[in-house]
Amino acid sequence: MAKKITSREENYSQWYLDVIEAAQLADSSPVRGCMIIRPHGYAIWENIQKELDRMFKETGVKNAYFPLFIPKSFLEKEAKHAEGFAKEVAIVTHHRLKLGENGKLIPDAPLEEPLIVRPTSETIMYDTFSRWIQSYRDLPLLINQWCNVVRWELRTRPFLRTMEFLWQEGHTVHATKKEADEETLAMLEIYRKFTEEYLAVPVAVGYKTESEKFAGADYTTCIEAMMQDTKALQAGTSHMLGQNFAKSFEVKFLDEKGESQYAWQTSWGLSTRIIGALIMAHSDDKGLVLPPKIAPIQTVIVPIWGEKEEERNNIFEAADKIAEELKKIGLSVEMDKRDARPGAKFFEWEKKGVPVRIEIGPKDLEANSIIAVRRDTGEKETVAMADAEKRIPELLEAIQKNLFEKALEFRKENTHAVNSWEEFVSHIPEAKRGEAEDAKTGRGGFLLAHWCGKAECEAEIKKRTKATIRCVPFDQPGEEGKCVLCGGASKKRVIFAKAY
Amino acid sequence: MAKKITSREENYSQWYLDVIEAAQLADSSPVRGCMIIRPHGYAIWENIQKELDRMFKETGVKNAYFPLFIPKSFLEKEAKHAEGFAKEVAIVTHHRLKLGENGKLIPDAPLEEPLIVRPTSETIMYDTFSRWIQSYRDLPLLINQWCNVVRWELRTRPFLRTMEFLWQEGHTVHATKKEADEETLAMLEIYRKFTEEYLAVPVAVGYKTESEKFAGADYTTCIEAMMQDTKALQAGTSHMLGQNFAKSFEVKFLDEKGESQYAWQTSWGLSTRIIGALIMAHSDDKGLVLPPKIAPIQTVIVPIWGEKEEERNNIFEAADKIAEELKKIGLSVEMDKRDARPGAKFFEWEKKGVPVRIEIGPKDLEANSIIAVRRDTGEKETVAMADAEKRIPELLEAIQKNLFEKALEFRKENTHAVNSWEEFVSHIPEAKRGEAEDAKTGRGGFLLAHWCGKAECEAEIKKRTKATIRCVPFDQPGEEGKCVLCGGASKKRVIFAKAY
Repeated sequence: MAKKITSREENYSQWYLDVIEAAQLADSSPVRGCMIIRPHGYAIWENIQKELDRMFKETGVKNAYFPLFIPKSFLEKEAKHAEGFAKEVAIVTHHRLKLGENGKLIPDAPLEEPLIVRPTSETIMYDTFSRWIQSYRDLPLLINQWCNVVRWELRTRPFLRTMEFLWQEGHTVHATKKEADEETLAMLEIYRKFTEEYLAVPVAVGYKTESEKFAGADYTTCIEAMMQDTKALQAGTSHMLGQNFAKSFEVKFLDEKGESQYAWQTSWGLSTRIIGALIMAHSDDKGLVLPPKIAPIQTVIVPIWGEKEEERNNIFEAADKIAEELKKIGLSVEMDKRDARPGAKFFEWEKKGVPVRIEIGPKDLEANSIIAVRRDTGEKETVAMADAEKRIPELLEAIQKNLFEKALEFRKENTHAVNSWEEFVSHIPEAKRGEAEDAKTGRGGFLLAHWCGKAECEAEIKKRTKATIRCVPFDQPGEEGKCVLCGGASKKRVIFAKAY
Repeated sequence: MAKKITSREENYSQWYLDVIEAAQLADSSPVRGCMIIRPHGYAIWENIQKELDRMFKETGVKNAYFPLFIPKSFLEKEAKHAEGFAKEVAIVTHHRLKLGENGKLIPDAPLEEPLIVRPTSETIMYDTFSRWIQSYRDLPLLINQWCNVVRWELRTRPFLRTMEFLWQEGHTVHATKKEADEETLAMLEIYRKFTEEYLAVPVAVGYKTESEKFAGADYTTCIEAMMQDTKALQAGTSHMLGQNFAKSFEVKFLDEKGESQYAWQTSWGLSTRIIGALIMAHSDDKGLVLPPKIAPIQTVIVPIWGEKEEERNNIFEAADKIAEELKKIGLSVEMDKRDARPGAKFFEWEKKGVPVRIEIGPKDLEANSIIAVRRDTGEKETVAMADAEKRIPELLEAIQKNLFEKALEFRKENTHAVNSWEEFVSHIPEAKRGEAEDAKTGRGGFLLAHWCGKAECEAEIKKRTKATIRCVPFDQPGEEGKCVLCGGASKKRVIFAKAY
């Protein structure tokens, strides 16, 4: 008997875990903090990779692969970077096991210099870039890598925060600051476009504050999404590294005048974490809801038959024909002829988030029609078989649009401009509250508030409410105001929110 | 000034390294034994992934992702497997760095149980499979994973043997021995087909001997290719694991009668090593030669212009038109409009192994034609512009065919049936000889010899000549004979060769 999915209202955190289990997206593993990405979850990642990879390559980016291990001395070269990652790295110290007493294996052969399992690859890549780049003719250098990285996290949750995760990390080198600034924003724009148009998740775009930026960057830009509990989730970041790493790793080039210059660099990354955002943005109490553009299965066909063999054969034949037609126009179609009750099948595909379910039973066959059921709204409609290849794509498009609009509407409802500390805490109270309660009372959300720019105020607000500055939005009304905490002068509103 | 490529005759090992450097396929890294796969090399791996992944999925295999780390206790569960890998694993023992004296970072926070960086994933996967599988309805389970693995090797060479490498590892679970036997062979057949039809590298298929099989398998099957120095290279393996791991990891299912049974398993893998085979099978003293079906760039267009701007514009226009046409029919085309001497460009694309180079100069434009140059033979031909979209694909097909046939012919010339020890050592002498000398004298090759089946003879031959049994070919003439070393009865010929 399948486990019931906890409702969002009852327990949002448990609901998230239940949706993942019911859709068979991921599984816990015997290694603390590491998850197993199951086929249905991995197929979503493959679709994400396919689209993003295409978008990167269209801008001239090329993929490469750098070592998993980073010599400890490399991390020591960029002090801020080292400080940011030292507390969360896995360290390889031995390269052999020997058989000890009781048949147990014991680490043997210690390394002269310990190796760090990459938490990110700036250091190892830039050491190499310093040799690849000689002159301005070698620039820009636009490299991306799809790989696994490890960050030792104490509190983990599937997709959202895992010790090992999969991601892409782009690293570019430019001759001028202007080009690097532009690249930083261009890649952020790809993340925004991808997240909104493919995942149907609206995002706020802006700068991170000094305290939230990447360790070693001049500045960090990000996309921030709102989950259904109104918490924020950082879904991708693009960093302008300035010349910081270039100076630590001697990434230099001869300019057109033959003079040696430090290069300007960017890095940008998006990880399997975004699957957590995808799940939390759209799913409901029945399980996973996926936007058609990223769903591994866009349509499932469930034939329904009685006891007569001839009837079954005719229904299978009609179902196969529809499947063929839909595949021909490029849809991903699953055919479910398993010998099981239709209700159980419907339930299963619902939990897996398949956008459109097609049913074909004896009466449908007689009427030369099928039933199409939308996962997002549950709406059923009868479609003439001859119209299927026109109507199903229309439905998928409507679902994609509806999911985005619904999420956008939800974000609007839960975004508040606040102009005083009283207003601020009326949405995100000072007292520590359970997540579930916050979700129930509808509190939280994105708070657009003036902030003086001082790290002290930012820290104090975080301490009192757990809300952090998610970003300083690019898009500013140009309005002046007073810091929501200290009353100091402010020229910008920032987004405060509790975050994953 | 570009470095000259060492000739094969002069020094085969150095030639291999020079080809890789000249084609910018890979670079050494600051981590001993780890390489950096550069964009041109990684694009080959992406093409390999694309085709193999499609072939796997057509048989119902699904991709998933399992943790990079394996608890030490898991490796202890299957004794033979542990024995096979214990001496070459990287071990994570700490999860934090702290700042020590002199600003150096020191490993901190030791783990309770050390973690092994996966050398392969049988143990961690099968522990999970034991929970995924309940009944015969859950079988077959067909899982594949694209990932990095680490095996601590002392002597490394780019692609051929690196400490970290990229690969795919397939893992399947079946209800019966028969199904698992069939799966083992079916996946080997995919490797054979892929290697011969896409990489244009002919392979011998067969079983590994007991001493060469995978640690923990019932038997191992493999594909073995011959390199241009007549040495063998194992390019892919498919293992029948029997119930060995099932018993260690409790991979059981309830059969149709409701009885609990141990499952039957297979695993199969192919790695970036095969790029080494690809390089060594076809390349020449001018550099890399790639079969069109796997080449990242199938055709490069090099416009040649004089000083007049109008002439250049007209030539560019014609070149762009050809490029568009070829892209439309699905070819991967590179346009080289860089401001450099045509000769230098030709040289560069030659080194990178681009199968067909197209030149368009003022005279060609006047004649409405282009020059097409084959990388494999160096042949030039004039093609009318209007015929390009017909003729270029024909040339690519001819190159693909020629490379395979050439490699097949080479293997035939260097495969010898030997019936006595004297004959054996006339090809692979007993005295230790340098690689280069072997290549020069044309000695070595694949020796088809009778073998009694005893591990002692196999070991003695290896000791005396360094030749190992590459495989016991599936295809046997059914002829009886005498062991080439001891004279004992034999019903089969095996392939002896020196190997990478």
